[in-house]
Amino acid sequence: MIIQLDNKITEKQFQNIESALMNIQYKTQHIKTQFKEYLVCIGKKEFDIRSIGKLEGIEDIHRVSDQYKLVSSKWKIGKTMVDVDGVKIGNGHFEMMAGPCSIESEEQIRTIVAHLVKNNIKIMRGGVYKPRSSPYSFRGLGIDGLKIFHEICQENGIKIVTEVMQVSQIEPMLPYVDIFQVGARNSQNFNLLDELGKVDKPVLLKRGMSGTIEELLQSAEYIFSNGNERIMLCERGIRTFEKAYRNTLDLNAVAVLKEKSHLPVIVDPSHGIGIRKYVEQMSLAGIMVGADGLIVEVHPQPEIAFSDGQQNLNFPEAEVLYGKIQKTRELVNEF
Amino acid sequence: MIIQLDNKITEKQFQNIESALMNIQYKTQHIKTQFKEYLVCIGKKEFDIRSIGKLEGIEDIHRVSDQYKLVSSKWKIGKTMVDVDGVKIGNGHFEMMAGPCSIESEEQIRTIVAHLVKNNIKIMRGGVYKPRSSPYSFRGLGIDGLKIFHEICQENGIKIVTEVMQVSQIEPMLPYVDIFQVGARNSQNFNLLDELGKVDKPVLLKRGMSGTIEELLQSAEYIFSNGNERIMLCERGIRTFEKAYRNTLDLNAVAVLKEKSHLPVIVDPSHGIGIRKYVEQMSLAGIMVGADGLIVEVHPQPEIAFSDGQQNLNFPEAEVLYGKIQKTRELVNEF
Amino acid sequence: MIIQLDNKITEKQFQNIESALMNIQYKTQHIKTQFKEYLVCIGKKEFDIRSIGKLEGIEDIHRVSDQYKLVSSKWKIGKTMVDVDGVKIGNGHFEMMAGPCSIESEEQIRTIVAHLVKNNIKIMRGGVYKPRSSPYSFRGLGIDGLKIFHEICQENGIKIVTEVMQVSQIEPMLPYVDIFQVGARNSQNFNLLDELGKVDKPVLLKRGMSGTIEELLQSAEYIFSNGNERIMLCERGIRTFEKAYRNTLDLNAVAVLKEKSHLPVIVDPSHGIGIRKYVEQMSLAGIMVGADGLIVEVHPQPEIAFSDGQQNLNFPEAEVLYGKIQKTRELVNEF
Amino acid sequence: MIIQLDNKITEKQFQNIESALMNIQYKTQHIKTQFKEYLVCIGKKEFDIRSIGKLEGIEDIHRVSDQYKLVSSKWKIGKTMVDVDGVKIGNGHFEMMAGPCSIESEEQIRTIVAHLVKNNIKIMRGGVYKPRSSPYSFRGLGIDGLKIFHEICQENGIKIVTEVMQVSQIEPMLPYVDIFQVGARNSQNFNLLDELGKVDKPVLLKRGMSGTIEELLQSAEYIFSNGNERIMLCERGIRTFEKAYRNTLDLNAVAVLKEKSHLPVIVDPSHGIGIRKYVEQMSLAGIMVGADGLIVEVHPQPEIAFSDGQQNLNFPEAEVLYGKIQKTRELVNEF
Repeated sequence: MIIQLDNKITEKQFQNIESALMNIQYKTQHIKTQFKEYLVCIGKKEFDIRSIGKLEGIEDIHRVSDQYKLVSSKWKIGKTMVDVDGVKIGNGHFEMMAGPCSIESEEQIRTIVAHLVKNNIKIMRGGVYKPRSSPYSFRGLGIDGLKIFHEICQENGIKIVTEVMQVSQIEPMLPYVDIFQVGARNSQNFNLLDELGKVDKPVLLKRGMSGTIEELLQSAEYIFSNGNERIMLCERGIRTFEKAYRNTLDLNAVAVLKEKSHLPVIVDPSHGIGIRKYVEQMSLAGIMVGADGLIVEVHPQPEIAFSDGQQNLNFPEAEVLYGKIQKTRELVNEF
Repeated sequence: MIIQLDNKITEKQFQNIESALMNIQYKTQHIKTQFKEYLVCIGKKEFDIRSIGKLEGIEDIHRVSDQYKLVSSKWKIGKTMVDVDGVKIGNGHFEMMAGPCSIESEEQIRTIVAHLVKNNIKIMRGGVYKPRSSPYSFRGLGIDGLKIFHEICQENGIKIVTEVMQVSQIEPMLPYVDIFQVGARNSQNFNLLDELGKVDKPVLLKRGMSGTIEELLQSAEYIFSNGNERIMLCERGIRTFEKAYRNTLDLNAVAVLKEKSHLPVIVDPSHGIGIRKYVEQMSLAGIMVGADGLIVEVHPQPEIAFSDGQQNLNFPEAEVLYGKIQKTRELVNEF
Repeated sequence: MIIQLDNKITEKQFQNIESALMNIQYKTQHIKTQFKEYLVCIGKKEFDIRSIGKLEGIEDIHRVSDQYKLVSSKWKIGKTMVDVDGVKIGNGHFEMMAGPCSIESEEQIRTIVAHLVKNNIKIMRGGVYKPRSSPYSFRGLGIDGLKIFHEICQENGIKIVTEVMQVSQIEPMLPYVDIFQVGARNSQNFNLLDELGKVDKPVLLKRGMSGTIEELLQSAEYIFSNGNERIMLCERGIRTFEKAYRNTLDLNAVAVLKEKSHLPVIVDPSHGIGIRKYVEQMSLAGIMVGADGLIVEVHPQPEIAFSDGQQNLNFPEAEVLYGKIQKTRELVNEF
Repeated sequence: MIIQLDNKITEKQFQNIESALMNIQYKTQHIKTQFKEYLVCIGKKEFDIRSIGKLEGIEDIHRVSDQYKLVSSKWKIGKTMVDVDGVKIGNGHFEMMAGPCSIESEEQIRTIVAHLVKNNIKIMRGGVYKPRSSPYSFRGLGIDGLKIFHEICQENGIKIVTEVMQVSQIEPMLPYVDIFQVGARNSQNFNLLDELGKVDKPVLLKRGMSGTIEELLQSAEYIFSNGNERIMLCERGIRTFEKAYRNTLDLNAVAVLKEKSHLPVIVDPSHGIGIRKYVEQMSLAGIMVGADGLIVEVHPQPEIAFSDGQQNLNFPEAEVLYGKIQKTRELVNEF
């Protein structure tokens, strides 16, 4: 059960609500986000929800039978729109995020930013901390790379989405990041999720490689219940027996997530299928299933890109894609 | 290597080609389909393909490095269009197949046929032999059901696609079936595939529950190499760890199959995700990825449908879907 | 619910039981096997089982809540022992089955039979009908190979287990086969299972590549409910994301099958992990989990074996394994 | 290529080696562990390894073609034995680790420690930081619980293995932990692995839920290449389509890991299959495949245990298991 508290609730009203809940043996968790206060109430006793709902200080009250609570669609009227300093995602707003796997150099950033500006794309992806299977691989330019990345993006009005890999990186990254990305390998790094719940920056949370829908939503619940409502979920491909692609982009998950949760859902076709020539098709399919955004790897010269060059689009390919996305979005809006 | 033989090839020319291939230690398989004659040649020796290609009696010659040969896109110019007595699928032609999981009664058939006619759908699905996990479940109306099914469809100009489960059913079913469907559980029933290669009826071949792309194409090769070129591939969901849906519809496979093979690809969203409310989204996504057709479960009263009622659309839901399919197809054609 | 009928039940007693069951709205299926008669009863109504159990003509009666019935351990006291003309498997009896992937020649058979005789192994495996992904691969020596195989084995007192791929093969194979093997690809070929239920030869039923425990037991139920109780279940590896082995031998399944069913369980480590050097370890582990038998690929010259040479043991390796199996079995018997 | 440096290498000899490697365009990484110094050398050029090997200051040199280097069995003669302050694991030494899922209370610890002492078990498992899918679940007693856990264990000569979830926990936990456990969800938390490489405490590294053998070994490489050689690998079940058990314990992985790496391999049957009644069988099978240790959940009252009670053994069950482990180990040693 989720109780949305009135913005002007008094201390006395609050205590009154808590004791009413204690009387029916419900455990409560008091949650304050950047937008609102909630009581998440967990218990088993049957009771008339109106007997609680009529108490003063309560704005709204809903039963939520899911294991996840605040990220469930069962209590919230309408969908969540995440506002990234004016760039809106979700609840009818669609955004494209494009850029390289890894930030490589100032020149690379400038070339890509120019490409984004030209194509009216407002969010650039690019890793400065790279999770790599092998300790001997390139692990990214780190905070210094991020500062340059940020400077160039800011000059050009572009927002940054980039991966944070551990708690100690959050604070130094904070001034330079617009959206914190949590990668598939950290999808159940609960300490990281806790801390990202305490900052007021949007979080793009990727599904684990074998993460269930349920687990992804529980991970999002960690962020929300720590105080941050600005969450986007991201499908990026799962592990299956099939070896013809790097991962199996699971668009079923997008359909289900859009129904089970009010949060925006982003599709990552680049990692999802992992092969450049299929990225366009999977992107458009993602939109038809209901994606609120796409995050696509684009590089001026995919052949020489760091790490995952084989899944990066070059600029002409990307521009063909942007055009088709536009038209596909128009069709979805018509439906 | 695939050699397309000239339609007017003489016996002598043929022997000449065979001995040239024997000289370079290639094993050949001579294949006659309803349309054409081929030599599938397997060997390792390096040689100048033109030295063979210039021989008389050869129409065209191509190297095919894939394990599968005749179903590969490496030798055929353009895509295959399967003609179901005038109803065309593939190579730009899109068709909808709709109908119940199981044929239940004459009345049920009539109701659905009327729905199809009204919506200008030309192919009806419906099982009379049902593969069921449990021996105690309803296994379908069998050949008698099929005869009624056929009679009503023929009166109304509707084609039938229905599952064949074993070799001995092929002959009795033949006069009443327009497309033989091979189910997921029989996707590697090689004897069945062999025999379906010997009849001149289109075959809709489903991917196995954990069948790879490679295996599906090899299974199709069984049918083609026995003489039947009229094959459609079908993605119907794979098995993964995720429990939120019955199967995981793998649209990545559609993208890859469309590139690796010249055969049409059909998407089955009903079994693919297995939950009624998501069928529409998955259908439209399937079209965006490149499907040449959809096979969708539709029932006048899903609540009382045999076997898989929970994934059947009712008529109003189906009609909304048909409209959206139309528009999505228009967009795809525009691209 | 399963009712074991008395061997001397009269027609009248039988009708009496059936009408008692009809009165409580239970659907019954009357099953006669080579050993016994049963009524499998399916219904939902609550009732006192003793009211039925006390009727004349009933030997025993048990509730079976599983989806599968006759193969469930819920009704049968003790485990099933399958008797292969004197060679006993299950219920404390352990047997080894060894031999090549494919029967290749008379000489090959003689060499292997001599090896088996020397090592006191009583059952030889060897395929004459081979399911192959590609239609261009060797598909086995067929019925002629089987006849030679049978002749040599009979001379030496060795039993044969070999794969049957389709219904039409059953009759011609019948005189030459001691155990019919159903391969992973045919694990849900229900027509084949039905027909194997009608012959009085033991069946070794392999789990499908992504077959669940539940599905495997339901497939066994097909055989039993058609009249054949002599069934062995076989774990042979499942499909997972891991690429370091051909399949993932799932010994968890062995533990669970041994508890859920009274049927013997055989482990196939050769296909299970698919790499020769690990076959010994997986074999011994299989025994510790409770396997009633092993089916292992052994070949005089694995390097030149047909089809799956890389998973065949040579004779010295096999003999080391037999010795360790002996001792491991002794330990298991001690526990 | 791995170069083991001589313990008495001079600065000049070192520079000489580095320049020889630079001449053949090899990138080197200089690694100092608690035991030894290494150069991990990565390059493509063909050269005579003896030309490097003969340089002064080199103790041994080996080519390692695997992606992982220091954890590979390709360079090390013999297997690694991890010494936990006198308790030895690996290279022929087998140890049992037993205890509850979560540390719950002083009384619970004392009861279990007494059980371990009685059964001569030297390592106790027990979580004080618990990774939980839901933020509303119990997350463990934390550092205060660990201090009590440590005090009681130390009094009784028992070593502690417990999970560390994030970098900031390492330092406070250090005085109270004998083996740091990295859980499945953190198997690719590279920052955590880096830092665990910098402490001189053994690490038990679990395979991710869909982690490949290759990835597990690469994760171990992170720890080793940061300076810590005391690593144990742990198989704890993977995610598959099968729903009859919580996870699918993959004993194939144990066989392969034992061959590919010199590190000890531990099997966790409790999480591996996740159902109490099958833990014994899976444990013994694990030993037959080659496990150097087992980590098993044991609780005085599984019915009331925190989190995963359904997979905990009670004391009598555990004692039966210990006895059988003993005998199974004797048999393995005999082989």
